[in-house]
Amino acid sequence: MSTAINCRDYVFCLTTDEQTSSPKFEVNPMAWQRPDGRQPCELRHHSFEPNFTRFAPGSVLAKCGDTQVLCNVSITEGVPRFLLGSGKGWLTAEYRMLPAATQQRQERELLKLSGRTQEIQRLIGRSLRAALDFRLLGERTITVDADVLQADAGTRTTAITGSFVALAYGISRLLEQGILERSPLTRQIAAVSVGLLDGEPFLDLNYVEDVAATVDFNVVMNQNLGIIEVQGTAEEGSFSRHQLNQLLDFAETGIQELLISQRQAIANWESLLTNN
Amino acid sequence: MSTAINCRDYVFCLTTDEQTSSPKFEVNPMAWQRPDGRQPCELRHHSFEPNFTRFAPGSVLAKCGDTQVLCNVSITEGVPRFLLGSGKGWLTAEYRMLPAATQQRQERELLKLSGRTQEIQRLIGRSLRAALDFRLLGERTITVDADVLQADAGTRTTAITGSFVALAYGISRLLEQGILERSPLTRQIAAVSVGLLDGEPFLDLNYVEDVAATVDFNVVMNQNLGIIEVQGTAEEGSFSRHQLNQLLDFAETGIQELLISQRQAIANWESLLTNN
Amino acid sequence: MSTAINCRDYVFCLTTDEQTSSPKFEVNPMAWQRPDGRQPCELRHHSFEPNFTRFAPGSVLAKCGDTQVLCNVSITEGVPRFLLGSGKGWLTAEYRMLPAATQQRQERELLKLSGRTQEIQRLIGRSLRAALDFRLLGERTITVDADVLQADAGTRTTAITGSFVALAYGISRLLEQGILERSPLTRQIAAVSVGLLDGEPFLDLNYVEDVAATVDFNVVMNQNLGIIEVQGTAEEGSFSRHQLNQLLDFAETGIQELLISQRQAIANWESLLTNN
Amino acid sequence: MSTAINCRDYVFCLTTDEQTSSPKFEVNPMAWQRPDGRQPCELRHHSFEPNFTRFAPGSVLAKCGDTQVLCNVSITEGVPRFLLGSGKGWLTAEYRMLPAATQQRQERELLKLSGRTQEIQRLIGRSLRAALDFRLLGERTITVDADVLQADAGTRTTAITGSFVALAYGISRLLEQGILERSPLTRQIAAVSVGLLDGEPFLDLNYVEDVAATVDFNVVMNQNLGIIEVQGTAEEGSFSRHQLNQLLDFAETGIQELLISQRQAIANWESLLTNN
Amino acid sequence: MSTAINCRDYVFCLTTDEQTSSPKFEVNPMAWQRPDGRQPCELRHHSFEPNFTRFAPGSVLAKCGDTQVLCNVSITEGVPRFLLGSGKGWLTAEYRMLPAATQQRQERELLKLSGRTQEIQRLIGRSLRAALDFRLLGERTITVDADVLQADAGTRTTAITGSFVALAYGISRLLEQGILERSPLTRQIAAVSVGLLDGEPFLDLNYVEDVAATVDFNVVMNQNLGIIEVQGTAEEGSFSRHQLNQLLDFAETGIQELLISQRQAIANWESLLTNN
Amino acid sequence: MSTAINCRDYVFCLTTDEQTSSPKFEVNPMAWQRPDGRQPCELRHHSFEPNFTRFAPGSVLAKCGDTQVLCNVSITEGVPRFLLGSGKGWLTAEYRMLPAATQQRQERELLKLSGRTQEIQRLIGRSLRAALDFRLLGERTITVDADVLQADAGTRTTAITGSFVALAYGISRLLEQGILERSPLTRQIAAVSVGLLDGEPFLDLNYVEDVAATVDFNVVMNQNLGIIEVQGTAEEGSFSRHQLNQLLDFAETGIQELLISQRQAIANWESLLTNN
Repeated sequence: MSTAINCRDYVFCLTTDEQTSSPKFEVNPMAWQRPDGRQPCELRHHSFEPNFTRFAPGSVLAKCGDTQVLCNVSITEGVPRFLLGSGKGWLTAEYRMLPAATQQRQERELLKLSGRTQEIQRLIGRSLRAALDFRLLGERTITVDADVLQADAGTRTTAITGSFVALAYGISRLLEQGILERSPLTRQIAAVSVGLLDGEPFLDLNYVEDVAATVDFNVVMNQNLGIIEVQGTAEEGSFSRHQLNQLLDFAETGIQELLISQRQAIANWESLLTNN
Repeated sequence: MSTAINCRDYVFCLTTDEQTSSPKFEVNPMAWQRPDGRQPCELRHHSFEPNFTRFAPGSVLAKCGDTQVLCNVSITEGVPRFLLGSGKGWLTAEYRMLPAATQQRQERELLKLSGRTQEIQRLIGRSLRAALDFRLLGERTITVDADVLQADAGTRTTAITGSFVALAYGISRLLEQGILERSPLTRQIAAVSVGLLDGEPFLDLNYVEDVAATVDFNVVMNQNLGIIEVQGTAEEGSFSRHQLNQLLDFAETGIQELLISQRQAIANWESLLTNN
Repeated sequence: MSTAINCRDYVFCLTTDEQTSSPKFEVNPMAWQRPDGRQPCELRHHSFEPNFTRFAPGSVLAKCGDTQVLCNVSITEGVPRFLLGSGKGWLTAEYRMLPAATQQRQERELLKLSGRTQEIQRLIGRSLRAALDFRLLGERTITVDADVLQADAGTRTTAITGSFVALAYGISRLLEQGILERSPLTRQIAAVSVGLLDGEPFLDLNYVEDVAATVDFNVVMNQNLGIIEVQGTAEEGSFSRHQLNQLLDFAETGIQELLISQRQAIANWESLLTNN
Repeated sequence: MSTAINCRDYVFCLTTDEQTSSPKFEVNPMAWQRPDGRQPCELRHHSFEPNFTRFAPGSVLAKCGDTQVLCNVSITEGVPRFLLGSGKGWLTAEYRMLPAATQQRQERELLKLSGRTQEIQRLIGRSLRAALDFRLLGERTITVDADVLQADAGTRTTAITGSFVALAYGISRLLEQGILERSPLTRQIAAVSVGLLDGEPFLDLNYVEDVAATVDFNVVMNQNLGIIEVQGTAEEGSFSRHQLNQLLDFAETGIQELLISQRQAIANWESLLTNN
Repeated sequence: MSTAINCRDYVFCLTTDEQTSSPKFEVNPMAWQRPDGRQPCELRHHSFEPNFTRFAPGSVLAKCGDTQVLCNVSITEGVPRFLLGSGKGWLTAEYRMLPAATQQRQERELLKLSGRTQEIQRLIGRSLRAALDFRLLGERTITVDADVLQADAGTRTTAITGSFVALAYGISRLLEQGILERSPLTRQIAAVSVGLLDGEPFLDLNYVEDVAATVDFNVVMNQNLGIIEVQGTAEEGSFSRHQLNQLLDFAETGIQELLISQRQAIANWESLLTNN
Repeated sequence: MSTAINCRDYVFCLTTDEQTSSPKFEVNPMAWQRPDGRQPCELRHHSFEPNFTRFAPGSVLAKCGDTQVLCNVSITEGVPRFLLGSGKGWLTAEYRMLPAATQQRQERELLKLSGRTQEIQRLIGRSLRAALDFRLLGERTITVDADVLQADAGTRTTAITGSFVALAYGISRLLEQGILERSPLTRQIAAVSVGLLDGEPFLDLNYVEDVAATVDFNVVMNQNLGIIEVQGTAEEGSFSRHQLNQLLDFAETGIQELLISQRQAIANWESLLTNN
């Protein structure tokens, strides 16, 4: 993996004697002032509390600012029909927001899932499948449940980043129990949101910023900053290739920091990532 | 309210010099040995963590042994159609178990709610409505969301007892904000489960005991031990009037202890209960 | 079984020369006057019309006052998955109200069952399962269909009491056809509703009373007055242990009478109850 | 109305001294022998038991052989949106079969109605709307609930014929209560099934015949034998114009008899039919 | 097959020297004037465009005036459960209208199909099953998808007539591929609508006429004008046996013309119809 | 708008005398050979057939290779609740695939929409809303129905590009009818898919390529190549920032060509685009 260049480090550079070096990002002084005083390329405080619940093999309460997602990973024998006899496993994800997670209580989705919920749980599933070698998992199915307890924007990216930690814990338990001989984890995965406000890029938007942003972007990367998924939408107007590249620069920096935090949160990290 | 006679005190009495007084409950030495070493009429350790999430007016993480229920209380203007123009408010409850709350992951209820879920949320709603004077609430609707994060039996009674605390917090906030002039809380409500194992009564069963019990009983009472609801089912055989009375004795003792814990958990308890 | 002490007999006692004996129940002269002139502990007129329809093995039109429930019992080979290979049978129940059964036509429940309907059909199922030794039934499934043709309160208890009679008829037919060698009926089951009006107990409420009652109670018992299920709810205020015991006294008396009526309605009753 | 020529009369003619007259229908002696010994153009025994339930304004238990349909007619103020302000009323019908109505218990239709059920309830609704002048009804909605208690073929035609009687009772009650000044009934409606077996026509098939028939026909007519609806399907092969005319001859004869029976079953028939 | 007597020919006869022969149909000069100037017994212009889409074995865009139905026929191995092991195949049909097919956009049917849609797709299925010998098909299932792209009345009959052509194409492809050795097509099937306007019969109504008609009739016949299905409804008043016969005369004439058009549209028609 | 640089032109350049200029894209000769012989940055043949159906204000059959999408645009008065009284209009989209559109027939989505379908119709809606100034539309709702008649990959991008043409036709009709005074169209919108095969970029994948691609990318742009939406997923492995930029280069080139084709297909294009 390339050396991590931490965005938070960069941010602090601006106030130190390293100001003589040309900063990586130019900041427009006219731009959006963040409500919590963060620098444009600064993540919110984040943490991963492992073993939050007791019965799921992997259980992590992931917090990113005021966003809190309970990520539970369960593992069952067997696979969906299309994989029967293939020797390969599967991972599927479910995402829900508790009704009281937002400022205004929202109805539970009962008879059908909203398009938003379906999009998000498909994204979580795709992203985490990119972390695994399913041949090493064997015919088992991993289910990721990401339940948002508190929502202040960035719930889908927090769900991905936190569920990766829960996934590592779940696999670690299978290895301890001797059910698996070798870890199927072959890549580390993290995700972050970025957006344009007043035409300028910002990292890890909170709810107020998310509402004000004209462009909303979610990026999922692996430990080498290889892109797993990008999704960007202009809510208003459009954005240029130049802006897209700025957004991806910010996302890379945020993801580098998250990758470090994930590794710190996983007790036995060194032994878990398989080089296949 | 009558003086609280704590069941835990009683239990310890049996091993103290107060043994000369006739014990209230006769204990059969041949009966069920509790897996966690509790006395027959001893509650599990329980607690109410207020302000667990940030956006709901009332939010409590209620724990009873390994059972954990997130109780969120939201308040909105307006009432269901049948109360329009009545000047009276309403309270409704939703109950769900997170898929990973149990030892084996359970499917989410999407297309329809199970009979069990519906029964429980109707019970929670009825029980908490007994705590309120809806005329004092005015045409507002309180929604209680009880989401079980971890399940080790007693989820419905923990949901009721914990949601009462969340309800008190929610009302307290409305009073602070000046939206309400007078608290609509007129009664304190708590609930507990009891059951028969080997023909003897036990208080606050955990999962292993719940499975082994032949009679399963849930009791909801107010601060005067007035009964709000009793529901008892013989899973096997039947039970006698005498046994029913023993079970209610145990329930009373457990509920007295829970009523005290609730009052300790509610910051401004004294000012909240209206005598109407 | 203990000798049946009939509540109706008792009621008439009050107006006869047996008044010198101390009456079992004290009646408060200030209390609720029943719209149909019944004594507080008097059942409505009830009957069980067997073979009401032709194709179901057991078919009974159960009437209790103006409440009429068509109870059909069907028996099929096979059991639900969780019992496959166990050698044991199963019983499941469905309950519906015809739209025109009530004074105001009610919509049919189409996409989902209401919580009320689910609660009732679960109660019917649990109650009638208590009548059977499923090992003697073998891997067969009994389905009870309780369809309310006319509703004047007490539909769930009438459904249970009537379905027991239909169940006996259905089993009798299996025995005649030689499909079963021994009856799986091991207990007799009946149910009744009681309630508090003006703080006093009343047996077998009709619709007007049901609406006026502050406490609503349903009791299911077996032939020895062993309790199978109690469900009691304070619609308003609460009730005391003393009142609960009064209600159960009334329920016992009503159920004793219903047990006799059931036995009279079942042609070959003597040969059907197995002592296991 | 033309003089009723009763099919049952005709059938008996064949064995009397009126054999010199040329019989209306030629009977092929090689054809299907009816399991209940009926003549080809003979209806099953039928009856209409009024006031079968108590709360619906019109309630009739219609029997035709072993087919029994409970027909309830309810009337509510208001009309569907497309008629608001039109001054005209509406009639809608629901049809269901109780699960135990057939020899093999059938599942209730819960999540969706089968095509068969929808076809039948649409047919019942169309047929009975043909009996009414909706201007005379005013903006009220009549709901017909046809619930089959026992099924031996011909349930949809029995439902129509019986519901007409229930409709007349319901309207009669509205007139008595002074809610309507003039009856909106302007036509009498009855229905019958006919079919081809071994290429020959038969009236009012029972279940065994219905299964064996190659052509299945339902006919709805008014009091003048004007056709309201014909539906005929060749289950096997096809049928000719000649056969179609034979089937309609049989249907006419059966319907004539049913029209008489309906009028006999309706207490105050003379006063109910409005000539508009 | 009998010689086709074309209704369009007949219509022109009325204005030629053949007027001396007695015309088959008497036309009332006071009757409805068709908005498109057609004679009463004249079909709209119709066509069958084969191979409209590429992937379905049989795909036909059937047009009848402004009504356009895309008829796709797919064939899969296997049959529904009730035919497993029977050696016989099955045919099932689905019918939908695109939302923009009508003048006012209509909502898609999502959670449930309307009664109308279900009736129509059942009719299409029954009609086309009459064309096949399922023993010759073997255990395969044919699915007919009739999607209405543009609707100007007569969609169900156009769907049947067009789907027959698609069915012939689909079978032809199976024969070419050697999957079938012998065609299972044993009958030719076509359908047409007729109706009464101002008491007179008209063939192949368009939308304006359909709305104005008092009687609506759909007829399905085979190549010998054997009747497969008749469905006729009086939307207003009733109709006589005489009128019914007039309507069937018109239907026969229309269907004769459609049978010819179908045969012209099917490339290898001669080789496809099996005489079984 | 910038001068269109057509990708097809570029492709041909490679074989002409302009080879001396450095080509914009380097092509790896080892890479994927396209099954239809196209150059890597060559669109499939595409066309927009306007007025395909008659009743929708805008109706276009959009074809891109073997992919065919029927795009219908309907306009109704009124807006969803959240826009009531805002003076602004709305656009919503529905997407479906006909069952026979693919090589294997697919079941219709009846009880619920798949996540894929919901994602696609949300994407279509968002993309086309970017074309409109809703203040100029007024409180009207535009519904886009994109029904895939034949699917060979790229259905969502073909739906967007084709629906834009249908939208222009629909608006044109409103202007002609005088319902709108000024066109609400303020931007032109087109979309295309790109993907990586053997690590190299390709434009406008067909089904075979789509299955083989390791990265799948959809891009929506406006007439200035401003980005409206990018969505890219690594189905296998990951992709680099460099590859992402190559893919966007290809997408830009394809979209430029599609923008030209759209303008050619819209009869009165010049007068429709409002500069607001």
